[in-house]
Amino acid sequence: MTNLGWLCRIAIHGGAGVIDRASLTAEREAQFRAALARIAQAAWTRLLAGASALDVVEAAVRDLEDFPLFNAGHGAVLNADGSAEMDASIMDGRTRAAGAVAAAQTPTHPISLARAVMEHSEHVLLVGAGADRFAQERGLPQSPPAYFITDERAAQHMRAASLGRITLDHDALYNGPSASDKTGTVGAVARDAHGHLAAATSTGGMTNKRPGRVGDTPLIGAGTWAEDQSCAVSATGHGEFFMRSALAYDVHARMVYGNHDLHEACAGALGRVAELGGSGGLIAIDKDGHIALSFNSEGMYRAWVDADGLLRVAIYTES
Amino acid sequence: MTNLGWLCRIAIHGGAGVIDRASLTAEREAQFRAALARIAQAAWTRLLAGASALDVVEAAVRDLEDFPLFNAGHGAVLNADGSAEMDASIMDGRTRAAGAVAAAQTPTHPISLARAVMEHSEHVLLVGAGADRFAQERGLPQSPPAYFITDERAAQHMRAASLGRITLDHDALYNGPSASDKTGTVGAVARDAHGHLAAATSTGGMTNKRPGRVGDTPLIGAGTWAEDQSCAVSATGHGEFFMRSALAYDVHARMVYGNHDLHEACAGALGRVAELGGSGGLIAIDKDGHIALSFNSEGMYRAWVDADGLLRVAIYTES
Repeated sequence: MTNLGWLCRIAIHGGAGVIDRASLTAEREAQFRAALARIAQAAWTRLLAGASALDVVEAAVRDLEDFPLFNAGHGAVLNADGSAEMDASIMDGRTRAAGAVAAAQTPTHPISLARAVMEHSEHVLLVGAGADRFAQERGLPQSPPAYFITDERAAQHMRAASLGRITLDHDALYNGPSASDKTGTVGAVARDAHGHLAAATSTGGMTNKRPGRVGDTPLIGAGTWAEDQSCAVSATGHGEFFMRSALAYDVHARMVYGNHDLHEACAGALGRVAELGGSGGLIAIDKDGHIALSFNSEGMYRAWVDADGLLRVAIYTES
Repeated sequence: MTNLGWLCRIAIHGGAGVIDRASLTAEREAQFRAALARIAQAAWTRLLAGASALDVVEAAVRDLEDFPLFNAGHGAVLNADGSAEMDASIMDGRTRAAGAVAAAQTPTHPISLARAVMEHSEHVLLVGAGADRFAQERGLPQSPPAYFITDERAAQHMRAASLGRITLDHDALYNGPSASDKTGTVGAVARDAHGHLAAATSTGGMTNKRPGRVGDTPLIGAGTWAEDQSCAVSATGHGEFFMRSALAYDVHARMVYGNHDLHEACAGALGRVAELGGSGGLIAIDKDGHIALSFNSEGMYRAWVDADGLLRVAIYTES
């Protein structure tokens, strides 16, 4: 690690949920781990080169959106109409500037559209056709439906629809689970060489969800929070429970008002989700560079670089 | 007040903002005060009759939506396309159950659609056409665009559009302000005879807003929060700043983690909005029955019944 890097931290996630080892083939697991390692390494390299936390979390989430096995951007899950409706948000810890989109159908990189909302509109959140229209006005890359819909997601949607069931992106179907049903929302948190924090989150939501359903991912304070005085947080899980817990902001609030340390704050915030019957996880970095990777589900796809500068990748509790 | 009523409290608001006494005619002011008094009195009567806080805040917000001078339901402001796009949310303090809709164009009572989302879907938030479709599926009353668009709002929209300016529902235009530009978001908070809390908020958003823009009103934790252990909160103001402050949840968090009393918590939370340059207000009731009606704008349309059972109505700081 260079001198420049001593403040730098990065953590990314590819969703939390029921990850059944028996059904996750070795080959598929290796693909997940390789993607997480590659994307976290690229983010780390950018941080060491002096990139801002904001730029790094956006770029990391773009990379995660491009990876088809994660449920965001290319490879997003499909709603009850068979369409991908995508949600994303980003927040800059320096200024609490924030941008988000929900139920967008065209942006190739929903996270970059969220950033454009933050930087080039008076608004924080644009939804539906209005979000797509803004992508067009800003000249951001847009893609046709076929770009987002992978063969695996189409098959997953057909299974879910035939069962009349809404499934979390990362949860097994009761019948016929496959590893591809279990990948999830993506996100990134970073601290840059100047000590600034940022967070970004992106998702396709829940398989077979009702059109227009919006979860916690694009909601500032639910799925995403960043503030230099406390922490940066990106959440993943059953969004309805996270919204009813204001999860990401709860981590901040526990630290600032309750003097919790980061790990206590994350455990407490997830406890509020669990009280309601919800499960999932979050990644967080605090102002002092601590990293928390917390989940109450069976696993969470994640990678991070801590103070020692070493890249780590894990899916289950221990590894 | 009956014995049943000693726990009961109600507060409602019709928006906060720049309210220029000079341009608010006596006749118009009397209309506002009469509507606030009538709606708060009806809510109070329901509470004394044993209605739940949840039922009472929904009914009060329906009444506020029906009043054309407030910016919600009938009389909502118009977006840049000249359409009313409406946002609403409701939360039950007993269970933290919540429901919300955003950018809906057809529900006669957006708040009742939000409640239907809470009670009859697996979701918390539905947006756009998906929200309208859910209204239809549930058989809730829907209205054509002409129902929502009053002559005053159409004129207000044309003024804003001609100036190329987005205006807060309740803020004066720089040129040609009129009292009708200054009415706002509506909301209600209540404590019922069993000590349960609930909150509800509804709005048409900002005049000439970008289609698909969503503010704090439908976001659980930003515009609305209710939890029996702490407080019920309904916010009104420049939504983008409220979202970046997780305002409603911040009031809860300050009370629970920071041991602030309700008034300290509301002042602190609004202080976070002011730090960013935002203005607005909120109404809140805590678990012990304290009522806060806080704003950092020139005024807030409001009415409430406190422990003494007396109905009060105010617009400006003092009255």
